[in-house]
Amino acid sequence: MNAIKIPDIIIGRLPIYLRALQLMVEENIQTTSSQELGAHVGISAAQIRKDISQFGEFGKQGTGYKITFLIDKLKEILKIDRIWDVAIIGAGDMGRALARYQGFVNRGFRVVMVFDNDKSKIGQAIGEFVIQDMENMTEELKTRNIKIAMLTVPAPAAQKVTDLLVKAGAKVILNYAPVSLNLPEDVRVQYIDPATHLQRMTYYMV
Amino acid sequence: MNAIKIPDIIIGRLPIYLRALQLMVEENIQTTSSQELGAHVGISAAQIRKDISQFGEFGKQGTGYKITFLIDKLKEILKIDRIWDVAIIGAGDMGRALARYQGFVNRGFRVVMVFDNDKSKIGQAIGEFVIQDMENMTEELKTRNIKIAMLTVPAPAAQKVTDLLVKAGAKVILNYAPVSLNLPEDVRVQYIDPATHLQRMTYYMV
Repeated sequence: MNAIKIPDIIIGRLPIYLRALQLMVEENIQTTSSQELGAHVGISAAQIRKDISQFGEFGKQGTGYKITFLIDKLKEILKIDRIWDVAIIGAGDMGRALARYQGFVNRGFRVVMVFDNDKSKIGQAIGEFVIQDMENMTEELKTRNIKIAMLTVPAPAAQKVTDLLVKAGAKVILNYAPVSLNLPEDVRVQYIDPATHLQRMTYYMV
Repeated sequence: MNAIKIPDIIIGRLPIYLRALQLMVEENIQTTSSQELGAHVGISAAQIRKDISQFGEFGKQGTGYKITFLIDKLKEILKIDRIWDVAIIGAGDMGRALARYQGFVNRGFRVVMVFDNDKSKIGQAIGEFVIQDMENMTEELKTRNIKIAMLTVPAPAAQKVTDLLVKAGAKVILNYAPVSLNLPEDVRVQYIDPATHLQRMTYYMV
């Protein structure tokens, strides 16, 4: 399916479509059109049809998309037709909030471990988790074959911890530390930094 | 300066450059080149030069950029040569983490109010803030001329609260609720949803 390289900008829209479709299912809606889906996500119907058609013919002219079918296809494409184990690195406020976050359910991920290097935190509970010693992180991730990490350490520690994550075999990092990371080409990162997100919008303030 | 419309993708990179430059200043570095900056942020030197040159001539051939000067220029362009007051709507785990977040300092924003509609939370303290009644939100935002909100309410409440924010004059929303929002054209939104960010990356898993 990936023989032809699909632009990352298209890949980035698929989770948005999926999220809207999953909300429709919760409201017992069974079929939808690119127009209706577009109204939900603020993207044109033409763009949605074009994006989805990159991967096959999942809808029918006139009758639209069967939602559960399209959800299954999108999950398969995004490789979340399974559950990925995720480690949280850094048990500060953000790490704790993520450890308790209920929003991963039915979306392909489950948090399984939380690490910190602060001796006063190690052994403490966050919800169902016990904070583990970062000293053991590399070995634990390897043993449990965890490829995905959410990085919630302070900025000055982020690159050093990232190097350890890479060594442990991590391939996907969601970085909450407000700093750019140097990574090998086969490791992906996305950045969550509220200040940069806000700055991108204040530009448009009149 | 905005007579020519600059593509949003370029605007989106400016905060990344700014963040890296501010880290350089903290390390007492005074000048940089597009090559060096590029190595920090993982963007090509040519792209950086092209992006920055959209706004004027801020560097010199051969000597590069004077960092504090470039920082001032970027802050001016992004309209963060001032401090924007920000309200947090929703005092759950994520709202609390953001209320205590230290990462806004020197980046153009300060949290000034936290709202919730849960009677058992109203009046409670989060760090320096007292959780206020969402009933008063519209009036408070108007009175204090707050244009920016971080939305950390549950997904089913997000659109309703957003409509109130728009009515109160909000122009920038950072939405942590995992749902797309319908907004008038003059209101900007960015989405922070760890699951969609992760799904965009698992696509590339081999």
